[in-house]
Amino acid sequence: MRAEVILSPGEFDRYDLTGKTAIVIDVFRFTTTVLTALEAGMERFYPVEEIEDAWALKERDPSYLLAGERKALRIPGFDFGNSPLEHHGKRYAGGDLVCSTTNGTRAIHATKAANHIVLASLRSAWAVADYIMGLGSDVVFLPAGTDGRFSLEDSWCAGLMLDLLKLHVLGDGARTAKLIYAGIRHSELRTSTHGQRMQSLSLEEDLEFCLELNSSSGIVTWDPESGWGSLVR
Amino acid sequence: MRAEVILSPGEFDRYDLTGKTAIVIDVFRFTTTVLTALEAGMERFYPVEEIEDAWALKERDPSYLLAGERKALRIPGFDFGNSPLEHHGKRYAGGDLVCSTTNGTRAIHATKAANHIVLASLRSAWAVADYIMGLGSDVVFLPAGTDGRFSLEDSWCAGLMLDLLKLHVLGDGARTAKLIYAGIRHSELRTSTHGQRMQSLSLEEDLEFCLELNSSSGIVTWDPESGWGSLVR
Repeated sequence: MRAEVILSPGEFDRYDLTGKTAIVIDVFRFTTTVLTALEAGMERFYPVEEIEDAWALKERDPSYLLAGERKALRIPGFDFGNSPLEHHGKRYAGGDLVCSTTNGTRAIHATKAANHIVLASLRSAWAVADYIMGLGSDVVFLPAGTDGRFSLEDSWCAGLMLDLLKLHVLGDGARTAKLIYAGIRHSELRTSTHGQRMQSLSLEEDLEFCLELNSSSGIVTWDPESGWGSLVR
Repeated sequence: MRAEVILSPGEFDRYDLTGKTAIVIDVFRFTTTVLTALEAGMERFYPVEEIEDAWALKERDPSYLLAGERKALRIPGFDFGNSPLEHHGKRYAGGDLVCSTTNGTRAIHATKAANHIVLASLRSAWAVADYIMGLGSDVVFLPAGTDGRFSLEDSWCAGLMLDLLKLHVLGDGARTAKLIYAGIRHSELRTSTHGQRMQSLSLEEDLEFCLELNSSSGIVTWDPESGWGSLVR
């Protein structure tokens, strides 16, 4: 097993993921939120890039629940924003979430050629590392970043998982993710560019929840053929 | 003075450089080669993105010399490739170079909105750091990368210059460049993705020349209005 990290969302189209396991990471907040919603009982999620795609799906099946944000704020008319705390502690009896967020959704759609597609976050990094070891394929991490830019917290999470997986890495991106993980303390992640922006939007509670380490055993995967993802473990 | 590093060429279009000093870094090999050609006596260089743009300029003025590479190899019919060793030790009596390389040229063209545009390399990082301190504007580093991807050696050079400049940095990119500089030894840069590719193409001599530290006092700037760049010091 080899591992690469595509440090910037601006480079997602430059890598061939065929036959590989793709790990999408959007710590603040998409992959954390999807994990939390599914753990609370939602059955499936369907990521879409554009807001109008979400409304079109809802027209087809009015039972779908819409979730998403633009510039960290809930999209008008949607059932949920992009906060994990909207779902944490809830007990849903199923439900299908159609999600559109700025960074995470786009990262997921960049993985379509991959063999396996798994969502990871700081809460689930340990469980996901264990799961992908079992898959055996080469691994490519896609830190989703912020507004199309590299982000420290997503790359830190990739570096953490490289550390857990003890994989041999050679590429520039993976080497750098390891340096980020080794050089930035966990407590410093709230001072990342995106972390600072969340604080300025009074999203401290979300921030602290997203930063919790190893607090979930949930594995979220996505199937590009159906467009739906779910908890597999 | 504040400093930011745009880690990936895939993000160059996401930053506004208006009023800032832009530092373009393509250690392997464009900014090293331009510096060396100008120090050998060439008077000016004109970076173009496409090969046909170079031929079009040559048609206008047949005295122009064409230089450039695609996939690290000299473009057929061009006077020079992209090797600094073609120029090192030469004594030209002037001459205008029209250059097209894969990564460096594109990075330069991404800086058009900047107030000052300076080329840097490992050979000239100390001199350039000194020069941009004198300019006083906020600084944005553009490591040119390889094939549109982040590269370790260019970001290392940006991290080195941040260290020399002792600037206060907060953004994710600049923090990471500092970690790369602190965590990767100079001797390890030849094992970067691009470094390994150069070795596989038997370009070891170029590699060693490009890796020399603080061996030039030359300052190369570029003027987007005229399209020409030259040595200013």
